[in-house]
Amino acid sequence: MHQLRELLTGPPLPTRQLAHEKLNKIRALAAFSPDALSSIAYANQEIYLGLAAAGAAGLTYAWPIALAIAVLMASVAFSYIQTISAYPAGGGSYTVARENLGRLPGLVAASALLIDYVLTAAVSLTAGVAAIASAFPILWQVRVPLALFLLALITLANLRGMRESGSLMALPVYLFILCYIALIAIGLVRAVLEGPGSLPVAAPPPASALTLFLLLHTFASGCTALTGIEVISNGVPYFQPPQVKNARITLVVMAGLMGGLFVGSMGLTQFFAVIAAPNETILSALASRVLGHGPLYLLVQVSTLLILAVAANSSFAGFPRLASVLAQDRYLPNQFAHLGDRLVYSNGIGVLALLTAILIVAFHGDSHALIPLFAVGVFLAFTLSQAGMVKHWVRQRRSGWGLKAFVNGLGAAVTLLALGVIAFSKFLEGAWIVILLIPGLVILFQKIHSHYREISRELSLHGAPAPLKPVPRPRLVIPISGVHRGTLQAVRYARSISDQVTAVYVETDPEQTAHVRREWEAWGQGVPLVVVPSPYRSLIGPFLDYLYRADLEIHDGQLASVLLPEFVPVKWWHHLLHNHTAALLRLALLYDRRKWGTIRAIIDVPFHLRK
Amino acid sequence: MHQLRELLTGPPLPTRQLAHEKLNKIRALAAFSPDALSSIAYANQEIYLGLAAAGAAGLTYAWPIALAIAVLMASVAFSYIQTISAYPAGGGSYTVARENLGRLPGLVAASALLIDYVLTAAVSLTAGVAAIASAFPILWQVRVPLALFLLALITLANLRGMRESGSLMALPVYLFILCYIALIAIGLVRAVLEGPGSLPVAAPPPASALTLFLLLHTFASGCTALTGIEVISNGVPYFQPPQVKNARITLVVMAGLMGGLFVGSMGLTQFFAVIAAPNETILSALASRVLGHGPLYLLVQVSTLLILAVAANSSFAGFPRLASVLAQDRYLPNQFAHLGDRLVYSNGIGVLALLTAILIVAFHGDSHALIPLFAVGVFLAFTLSQAGMVKHWVRQRRSGWGLKAFVNGLGAAVTLLALGVIAFSKFLEGAWIVILLIPGLVILFQKIHSHYREISRELSLHGAPAPLKPVPRPRLVIPISGVHRGTLQAVRYARSISDQVTAVYVETDPEQTAHVRREWEAWGQGVPLVVVPSPYRSLIGPFLDYLYRADLEIHDGQLASVLLPEFVPVKWWHHLLHNHTAALLRLALLYDRRKWGTIRAIIDVPFHLRK
Repeated sequence: MHQLRELLTGPPLPTRQLAHEKLNKIRALAAFSPDALSSIAYANQEIYLGLAAAGAAGLTYAWPIALAIAVLMASVAFSYIQTISAYPAGGGSYTVARENLGRLPGLVAASALLIDYVLTAAVSLTAGVAAIASAFPILWQVRVPLALFLLALITLANLRGMRESGSLMALPVYLFILCYIALIAIGLVRAVLEGPGSLPVAAPPPASALTLFLLLHTFASGCTALTGIEVISNGVPYFQPPQVKNARITLVVMAGLMGGLFVGSMGLTQFFAVIAAPNETILSALASRVLGHGPLYLLVQVSTLLILAVAANSSFAGFPRLASVLAQDRYLPNQFAHLGDRLVYSNGIGVLALLTAILIVAFHGDSHALIPLFAVGVFLAFTLSQAGMVKHWVRQRRSGWGLKAFVNGLGAAVTLLALGVIAFSKFLEGAWIVILLIPGLVILFQKIHSHYREISRELSLHGAPAPLKPVPRPRLVIPISGVHRGTLQAVRYARSISDQVTAVYVETDPEQTAHVRREWEAWGQGVPLVVVPSPYRSLIGPFLDYLYRADLEIHDGQLASVLLPEFVPVKWWHHLLHNHTAALLRLALLYDRRKWGTIRAIIDVPFHLRK
Repeated sequence: MHQLRELLTGPPLPTRQLAHEKLNKIRALAAFSPDALSSIAYANQEIYLGLAAAGAAGLTYAWPIALAIAVLMASVAFSYIQTISAYPAGGGSYTVARENLGRLPGLVAASALLIDYVLTAAVSLTAGVAAIASAFPILWQVRVPLALFLLALITLANLRGMRESGSLMALPVYLFILCYIALIAIGLVRAVLEGPGSLPVAAPPPASALTLFLLLHTFASGCTALTGIEVISNGVPYFQPPQVKNARITLVVMAGLMGGLFVGSMGLTQFFAVIAAPNETILSALASRVLGHGPLYLLVQVSTLLILAVAANSSFAGFPRLASVLAQDRYLPNQFAHLGDRLVYSNGIGVLALLTAILIVAFHGDSHALIPLFAVGVFLAFTLSQAGMVKHWVRQRRSGWGLKAFVNGLGAAVTLLALGVIAFSKFLEGAWIVILLIPGLVILFQKIHSHYREISRELSLHGAPAPLKPVPRPRLVIPISGVHRGTLQAVRYARSISDQVTAVYVETDPEQTAHVRREWEAWGQGVPLVVVPSPYRSLIGPFLDYLYRADLEIHDGQLASVLLPEFVPVKWWHHLLHNHTAALLRLALLYDRRKWGTIRAIIDVPFHLRK
């Protein structure tokens, strides 16, 4: 077990190896942009699927919708540039919302973010599998196992900790950027040379009419193109100095690339009137239209898969880190707070992997089915973060605060508007799950918080009586199942710590009692033996009854400690051959509250079997 | 939890209520015959399905095969009449084989019997569902849930204990007998009036040729008609006196009924050339041919379902009782040996229910698929039991021993022959599972036996030094996670039983150490505090290392006991919010064998949280 774990995740690492590597702009772009850049893989697909439902007439609206989304993108990017300046220590939505808007909005942002991390992982992996399955249609049938396999690889890599391979991540990102810039450039050249395409006559008949709802719905789906735009504002401390300046420049470059790739690919798709085959993504159809079905096309698909895998991987950094912050603030269980033996938040990574796997299986590895759940959390976090920034500027009132507040206010307004459109148009398709889940998580956070607060209150030494008077030596009661070496060892131990020892035999079969009494006389070392009858043949009930009666009637409510002789077998399966009465009795004693406030200790005296 | 259990299974019963009710012949027949009588429900079906594979030509062989099986039945019945006289205290195959042939054949018989009990339950329930689904075809789709539902009912009834409803069982048995006698009588009358039927021209074309293998295979399947014939010989002590005579008469009556119903129904089926619809049993087809599709037909189907349910129920008496005998002989885990609080062997009942459910689900509720597993165990137990009887007579050499040995020898020979046919012709269809399972179980029995023997050797007081010298007071080591009321309470308790107490703080975050040391100075009651650094942030490893180093280097190998302060939360889900370091440490200490032979007790001092 232990060896297997060490083989998979490597040996433990000492705390002193924990250090932050500082990134230059080139590597920072690679580290923080995969999520943002890769989102064109599903955003384009959603816009295409949304409009194709209304046939050729619908598809002509792709371009205006893409432009609207690009404007939204620019506005949000501007807002986050301001966040970078204001929070050079890292301004995640949770931090910004909590500091400026209060505890509750902070928790709402936190639960939206946790949900988004899971969805980013699930959507990126399924979209990545769809990209590669567009090139190799045979893979379409094994989408789910393939996505789970990728998930397992990423999980293992993260459990090992990936500091050493940070620069390895840059490769797929820049490969993707190069591929898509080349694709758009070649596409533009061909567009000039060949002129516009037209939709084939055999285009599928419209499944639904071109309504305002359909357009809003498509716009809402397309908004997923914005996911990941906020990542740089969380990561300012990882930049080389001058941190703020470098982070701002990187964000501008990233937003430019995002917009360029998104608008460029959408424009070409529209211009060439590209239509996807049944089991093909629209990006794949565009690439094969522009590049043919040769090695260049294949490279584009592979680079899409790779950047999506890296994007999924970015959730494995963000989710555990946020969970750790929440756990340190006592809103999530303690176990998320600490670094595991490989200096990563192993528990957070494990929970994220599990939730992602559940989503992939439940939604049959189909990114299109997952999208309706996705955008709600993203835009809720955007809105809260921007609203927090407005409050921040208004409160500080430094020079130029009016303009700054206006920019963030505009950001908050447009993301709130988009959020409304998303929640409304996607409600029945799955957005309701997230809309219910977010308050559920917030309530859970608060329940956890109040439990921890209560515990620390109960444990607090504040007001505890200083010179604690010593407690008297405890009486000991030993339940015995028979007279053997295990019992004798337990009695010897008991006599070394107490002068008042009683052995108790619960009689289920009266025929054996005489034999036990006789043996006890010979071996009992002078300790008195009490026989408790058990007409219903249970062991634990009668023993507990005796215990409490003796405490109450004979010893004035002074609790006796209980000493349990316990066998420890050699092989695990030997456990199946024993009754575990000691373990059950231990649980019953631990959870019995009839005598709260005084100490009844439970003393295990193990008897190790040799074979 | 406890309330729910009591609602389902009733309040506990005291041991003194355990008493054997003695049965007269009428009630004894009802108690011991359901398994035997109901087996025509699947035996006829198997013969029909086996021969139908060879088309109309095949079906003409039904009658001779039925006669051969009837002869086999008579021979086995004679053999068991002799067993009743020889073993009036109950002569199960396990007892007879072990006493006469030795330990190993006894265990082989026992494992064959355990397997048979499970298969009887599974086959009876699925065949019962098939009977009722023949009348209501819509039920065919819900065969598995329906069978599981019946299984759950029977399991619950047995967990409650069914002494009070013993005579209730007689109803379905006599209903079944009456229905089938009436069916055969009416059938005979109609046969005389109407003359023979002929197979329709549109009979399905033969799927396989009529080979010797096919006939043997069909004979092997039909042999399941004999299951249950041995039950009365196990139950002699339950008869009213004169026990042996009454048991023998009952066995003769039962065998007569078995043979009459089997031969009668097979003969009528052949005479009328009955053919079953795709989702219908052959008995159902016969009943509707003879009785029409009215209420009489329905009554026959219902009575078939009921007696099959009662037959499945009989496994719930036999399996737990045999498991208990095996556990008392130390071949199965202890937990099977004892009566639960309703005076039934609850663990045996639970395991049987679980295994039956697994079979029903794995074989999709299809009795035809289960049959190949069935007959092997039945005939192996027959053969061993008869062979044991031969040895018995030869050993005793009382008057007439030669004839008696011959009768049982003949029984052993024909059942061995049948066993060979069954094992050979059904091997690939599933008999191999049982053929592998039986030796597997025997090995398991022996492993368990040797484990218990080893334990009682290790625990034996034989040769133990009589005046055990007292052990010195233990040193105590308390691992602490911080300084709070839980810690202080633990220290107070520790000081009441030992003068040498040390507290140990494992340092994962050096920044907190100074704070802990300061608090300890104020509250530590003079107990020394040792700080153990943990560069890899794990708690248990460094603590254990300290513990063993201190034992070895400072205290000459004298083991310290470990006192664990442990929180006990109020609600179960609060457990998720704690690290359980105490529980993990406890396990690590219990299973550590580095210092085998001396006592290191583990003392839990619970701190009960109030909220």
